[in-house]
Amino acid sequence: MKPAIVKSLVVAVTLTVLSLSLARADDPLASWNEGPAKQPILEFIKATTSQGSPQFVPPEARIATFDQDGTLWVEHPMYTQIVYCLERVPALVKEKPELAKIEPFKTVLSGNQKAIARLSTNELVQILAATMTGMSVDEFSEEAKKWITEAKHPRWKRPYTELTYQPMQELLKYLRANGYKTYIVTGGGQDFVRVYAERTYGIPSEQVVGTAAGTKYGYDKGGRPFLTKEPKLLLNDNNAGKPEGIHLMIGRRPFAAFGNSTGDKQMLEYTKAGDGTRLAMIVLHDDAEREYAYGPAQGLPDTKVGTFTQALYDEAKKNGWTVISMKNDWKVIFPFESR
Amino acid sequence: MKPAIVKSLVVAVTLTVLSLSLARADDPLASWNEGPAKQPILEFIKATTSQGSPQFVPPEARIATFDQDGTLWVEHPMYTQIVYCLERVPALVKEKPELAKIEPFKTVLSGNQKAIARLSTNELVQILAATMTGMSVDEFSEEAKKWITEAKHPRWKRPYTELTYQPMQELLKYLRANGYKTYIVTGGGQDFVRVYAERTYGIPSEQVVGTAAGTKYGYDKGGRPFLTKEPKLLLNDNNAGKPEGIHLMIGRRPFAAFGNSTGDKQMLEYTKAGDGTRLAMIVLHDDAEREYAYGPAQGLPDTKVGTFTQALYDEAKKNGWTVISMKNDWKVIFPFESR
Repeated sequence: MKPAIVKSLVVAVTLTVLSLSLARADDPLASWNEGPAKQPILEFIKATTSQGSPQFVPPEARIATFDQDGTLWVEHPMYTQIVYCLERVPALVKEKPELAKIEPFKTVLSGNQKAIARLSTNELVQILAATMTGMSVDEFSEEAKKWITEAKHPRWKRPYTELTYQPMQELLKYLRANGYKTYIVTGGGQDFVRVYAERTYGIPSEQVVGTAAGTKYGYDKGGRPFLTKEPKLLLNDNNAGKPEGIHLMIGRRPFAAFGNSTGDKQMLEYTKAGDGTRLAMIVLHDDAEREYAYGPAQGLPDTKVGTFTQALYDEAKKNGWTVISMKNDWKVIFPFESR
Repeated sequence: MKPAIVKSLVVAVTLTVLSLSLARADDPLASWNEGPAKQPILEFIKATTSQGSPQFVPPEARIATFDQDGTLWVEHPMYTQIVYCLERVPALVKEKPELAKIEPFKTVLSGNQKAIARLSTNELVQILAATMTGMSVDEFSEEAKKWITEAKHPRWKRPYTELTYQPMQELLKYLRANGYKTYIVTGGGQDFVRVYAERTYGIPSEQVVGTAAGTKYGYDKGGRPFLTKEPKLLLNDNNAGKPEGIHLMIGRRPFAAFGNSTGDKQMLEYTKAGDGTRLAMIVLHDDAEREYAYGPAQGLPDTKVGTFTQALYDEAKKNGWTVISMKNDWKVIFPFESR
């Protein structure tokens, strides 16, 4: 080869490599594979935010709601908040020793993991009520903040807040860059998720809607007012409670909603039933290797954590919700993989 | 006078007039008289938003909450929402004729203003429940929107939404220009105030916290999901309900709060009790000529609408809340006066 040709080739190759890496750097959804999940997101943003588009949505109406467990971060083998509440039981029993002999606290203290896994929903609700109420909102917030900083997921040995999904983090940022207000709408405890939502997802406390108990206003000995968390359920933010919670806390129908289980069905339906272009997406956990695979929609056992039934899958297909396959649509799962 | 001197004088006078009107145009609180109410606002903004200030508040924590009735707009002779509900009674009775013979609906239908004014709180709550629930959230919103556009205040013969206080409108904008998220925290119905809050105050529906009833998710005949307003009280956003509602809907303590009655006492206390610099202000209706004068704190009769007691006045003085005198601190009351 003549030197001039070599030189041109080097330049051409360099330019190609440069433009490829520039394309990747420019791609707001770089962790999404091109295909049936990424495409509807790009189309939705184009349709609802381009001036002159017939489906244009004014900035103040741009609301997007995200379920958390299984949609933004790992929910297996157990919802993080349940782990927190179970681990709070010893401290609770220290304050109230009489609980040591009473179920379900006795089972939790036994440390018998099989027995703990068999606790009924009612028993878990008892544990949640006992460990999440009765203290001031500031005390609760400090304890939960300390725990979430130190606790680690049993499989990855990393803090739970590192086990968010990189593609969803990109989606949150992409929506915000296009004027959407992003909300978490979770069946988890509102006060619990608020402790880390800003740091973990860039979502401020006022944009976290969750299962919420009442508080009671009072004064300490010095006459300083404070709020106590009460065992009085105000909002059960699951199933029909999600659109109800959205109305209470936001007051308008979202233009985009994201979920992963039967608990998100009504939020997705409600969103999709609005006028104009609406985006409803549902995450399918089908990646046993990089994360987990579970749920009846894939013929797998119902693990009762993030149930995705065949009926939900059929509804998604019928109503034009996009099913996100973790295995096929996501290049990476976690932020630490892409660093 | 020599022509040159005349010319210089003209230039000087013109410059003075120009600089005066520029000063006014530059003043974000132009409708506030210089003095004991305006000064603390300017100091608060300087202390909490200047880089390097020991009292600096990070942008995400900048929350300011405003009562509505009597703080942002006129509340006399009757809360606007009560007027709305009373005027809805004939339409309600048309749908449910059996109510015509039952109190308190019978009294409302009689049109006897004295008897209507004597209705008890319980009777008013009955009327509120009957006229604000039982329909879809969209139906309610349309009806209320139509009414608020057409209804006029008996004294000024203008729409209620024109009877906001110009100085408070400036304060809302000034706070927002300095990174504060402005919220309405009202004893009024959350869904009612949301109908006009954006247009009237620049406050979006998700930043309106008010007395809230639950909704119920369901499907119409075509299978389209919708929410029905239920007669089930979730949040009574008055008195202690204000800080409780702030925790539920915002999740952090405000840095500034504004009220005008005993119903705002706890919100002001709660705000002021936070760390660092906090601003608590309370509007005193002492301008019988331009608006109204009422309340025991001035030795005037308690009209039961926006009660400002002597005890509240004493607490304000003791706790460092700023009392705003409408008569002395406000140059104009309404936006239409300054046009």
